[in-house]
Amino acid sequence: MTVAFQGEPGAYSEAAGQIYAPDATLLPCPSFEDVFGVVESGGAALGILPIENSIGGTIHRNYDLLLAHDPTIVGDLELRVVHSLIALPGTSLAQVRQIYSHPQALAQCDRYLRGLPGVEVVATYDTAGSAKLIKDRQLTDAAAIASERAAAVFGLRVLQTGIQDFADNITRFLVVASRGAEAPTRATNKTTVVFALPNQAGALFKALSVFALRDIDLTKLESRPIPGRPWEYLFYVDLAVGAEDFRCARALAHLAEFAPTLRNLGSYASTLSTRTPTPADPVVAAGEPA
Amino acid sequence: MTVAFQGEPGAYSEAAGQIYAPDATLLPCPSFEDVFGVVESGGAALGILPIENSIGGTIHRNYDLLLAHDPTIVGDLELRVVHSLIALPGTSLAQVRQIYSHPQALAQCDRYLRGLPGVEVVATYDTAGSAKLIKDRQLTDAAAIASERAAAVFGLRVLQTGIQDFADNITRFLVVASRGAEAPTRATNKTTVVFALPNQAGALFKALSVFALRDIDLTKLESRPIPGRPWEYLFYVDLAVGAEDFRCARALAHLAEFAPTLRNLGSYASTLSTRTPTPADPVVAAGEPA
Repeated sequence: MTVAFQGEPGAYSEAAGQIYAPDATLLPCPSFEDVFGVVESGGAALGILPIENSIGGTIHRNYDLLLAHDPTIVGDLELRVVHSLIALPGTSLAQVRQIYSHPQALAQCDRYLRGLPGVEVVATYDTAGSAKLIKDRQLTDAAAIASERAAAVFGLRVLQTGIQDFADNITRFLVVASRGAEAPTRATNKTTVVFALPNQAGALFKALSVFALRDIDLTKLESRPIPGRPWEYLFYVDLAVGAEDFRCARALAHLAEFAPTLRNLGSYASTLSTRTPTPADPVVAAGEPA
Repeated sequence: MTVAFQGEPGAYSEAAGQIYAPDATLLPCPSFEDVFGVVESGGAALGILPIENSIGGTIHRNYDLLLAHDPTIVGDLELRVVHSLIALPGTSLAQVRQIYSHPQALAQCDRYLRGLPGVEVVATYDTAGSAKLIKDRQLTDAAAIASERAAAVFGLRVLQTGIQDFADNITRFLVVASRGAEAPTRATNKTTVVFALPNQAGALFKALSVFALRDIDLTKLESRPIPGRPWEYLFYVDLAVGAEDFRCARALAHLAEFAPTLRNLGSYASTLSTRTPTPADPVVAAGEPA
């Protein structure tokens, strides 16, 4: 099985893919869009995409691409992120004049970077890609913020490790598959949906009521602008409910009564951030009409 | 009066400041943090900060800084953003190999950039700053995405204009003042608050009910992670209600009954995105206890 990820070998997304599917072949892709594309075309069975970091926040681009490409979410997982400052062998911390990394990684090391006066911070599109850049261009006065594994992959040396501002720096990844792919066999306990609402007072409150009145917990709510329609939003919601639970389909049917747009992005088995289902939960057999 | 903004002369924030306070002196600052700092220290009466773009979405950093610095919001305004591709005189479009701009501007011109194969896109911290970089380094094979005014300021030539993907590309700015500053004299019609919620099922629904049950419309809801507390969020909410309306204080007192954190970031007179108050609205005299 092939799992596509964005970045160079040594990227955090690659590590997440190895945890999710230990026997899979990991396929590096230049952009998030390419990950969606290769899954859509059948070039990879799964794609792994960072969706949220506990410090930096949501990776909005991937929410936008979920809607543009229409895959189905089949899982999620968390990865504890430990950032290192890495450089060419022979480069000391005192010699570093430029630090390259992805804006999210830079944001996660904000306090550390402020403690390095006279160093220019350069935003790039990738953590491991920054390591590659330093190696390819043989930059002796530069360092990258990336994983220790990226240092090993590109023959760089670790100057400092654990440089993120908070020890609890966790990235959550979504695992996506093509809509036509085989359905997962594990019982699901989480569902992600996206919807737009009519431009009416109280519309969001009414939307959340379809879940709250059925005791369905929201684990995340994210709003994104609708391009071309200023100050109208799409809402992405993670629900602590699986497809086998009759409340899921009922709540979504209720929401569809007044939401002009509603799309189910997938129900999946998550071991994260959701309450573990108990025998008391009203779970019906898989195969119940959804 | 001095109004601080982030960026170089020719930045969109500078244009917004000129619209908000036509007689003010505009003070360029290297970072958003510096804008908050100079307002806090009294070096500028007001600061102007982009908070949301109708295509790119929220500028999350400024929400985080609002909480870290504790100014008061005294106004907001919208600016229609028209991006141009600008370069040194003599550089033609065919010669451009690198395009520099802020990630938000790059995202707003995504489709345009895809139509330029073989061009490297480089993210920087500023649109007008990218124009300055091209001038300072005399980059003859590069262009910046910035305003026409930035081209004029730095002696660059406009290669193409209106290159954003959507004509309706609008940025909303907040105007902030120090907490100790004189209160605005205009009647307010909008209030921004931030709160955290207990980690309980239905907590967000309950929070929104304090507004919905009082017919207070939400014009925006944004969630941000709480650093160091994975998957717990702060919610930033814009309410279409002024401080003079008794429902505002009552709703916030109600929310404070169960929200462990609640801060009022300011009530202000907005001409935007909010319903215009009508004589039928239950408005009481200014000075009513809040």
